[in-house]
Amino acid sequence: MAQDMTLLWGSGSPPCWRVMIALEEKNLQGYNQKLLSFEKLEHKSQEVIDINPRGQLPSFKHGDVIVNESYAACFYLESQFKSQGNKLIPDSPAEQALMYQRMFEGLTFYEKLNAVIYYNWFVPEGERHDSALNRNREALVTELKLWEGYLQKLGSGSHLAGPSFSLVDVTVFPTVATLFRFGLSAEKYPKLGEYYALLKERPSVKASWPPHWLENRKGQDTLKDM
Amino acid sequence: MAQDMTLLWGSGSPPCWRVMIALEEKNLQGYNQKLLSFEKLEHKSQEVIDINPRGQLPSFKHGDVIVNESYAACFYLESQFKSQGNKLIPDSPAEQALMYQRMFEGLTFYEKLNAVIYYNWFVPEGERHDSALNRNREALVTELKLWEGYLQKLGSGSHLAGPSFSLVDVTVFPTVATLFRFGLSAEKYPKLGEYYALLKERPSVKASWPPHWLENRKGQDTLKDM
Repeated sequence: MAQDMTLLWGSGSPPCWRVMIALEEKNLQGYNQKLLSFEKLEHKSQEVIDINPRGQLPSFKHGDVIVNESYAACFYLESQFKSQGNKLIPDSPAEQALMYQRMFEGLTFYEKLNAVIYYNWFVPEGERHDSALNRNREALVTELKLWEGYLQKLGSGSHLAGPSFSLVDVTVFPTVATLFRFGLSAEKYPKLGEYYALLKERPSVKASWPPHWLENRKGQDTLKDM
Repeated sequence: MAQDMTLLWGSGSPPCWRVMIALEEKNLQGYNQKLLSFEKLEHKSQEVIDINPRGQLPSFKHGDVIVNESYAACFYLESQFKSQGNKLIPDSPAEQALMYQRMFEGLTFYEKLNAVIYYNWFVPEGERHDSALNRNREALVTELKLWEGYLQKLGSGSHLAGPSFSLVDVTVFPTVATLFRFGLSAEKYPKLGEYYALLKERPSVKASWPPHWLENRKGQDTLKDM
């Protein structure tokens, strides 16, 4: 049980989801948690600011220790609970190198996804340009092909750094799930589709599935022609 | 000696500099290295693409293992050479948590810096807006105040996660140095100025100082009114 931990989170936010998967993997169920609404701007509430001066979710506290950045929280949890739950950093130097490499490429992947699906959210009306959005879409396609190729090379049933589930899956799976929620075609990206299908059955992932995705099973079709 | 390592790098690139500082800290001098020119687009050359399909610097290889993402390379080097050179991840859980937290905030810091000093590089001419650049400048000021506050709280002579030099200094110092290279005022940001003055004398930092900064000691004044 993890009663000395508190997580403030938002449904469907990949950064929040990363931390929730990590907590499940390390058998840290039973933490205090509160689901907040981005739409109601609850991530800017005093309750959040008290933990996270940036006014962002996740906001995460373990005793007196605050680790809000999702990647930081994942590293921290693995480091503090090394021998509890699943081991999330492989021993083999090659697999470890690939894990680190893909984790940080994963930040680019996430950024390029956001630059398409949240373009209107990030860019104020008077500053929007079709040329920019098209460029962002092309950049996302390039990125998708890279990851499709990575999975192709690893072979069927593999995780992102090799045979075992690791921190790169914790951090990048929520991006992949968001792609499909926004209509990405598993026919065009079969390896990403296969990876998505494999991981969505994992207990840690199922236990932390965004509740509003369960309530409303139909996502958007923003990415269907990608 | 690190003769089984190869680094392709560009002068003044914070991501390249991070890896070079990490290599120095781990006593991994003597690696194969090649300085490439961003201006001549050498980061898009076949030599780079062979190691790094993204066509980016740094491109880093250790034997058959490729780790191009700068944060990934830093984690990898610390993990593979734990007991060699300086220990870069502190033992204390609180210091470790702070290190991870600030490392990932450091990516935001770097991004917000780039969005100001390289605005014209990132945004094509027809898509530029004064309103966007002003917003980016304000976001950078907010960010600068955050970091100034972090250092203030830690007290004089501290590193970014506490008393010892750690991975957060490896990864964030190049951003801080770039701020001052681009004219940031140490009078307005005395704690950042103090941190900069402390770290620039560190042997690993001196040994990896961007050569074109040494050749031309005068930087820009883009940030002087920040």
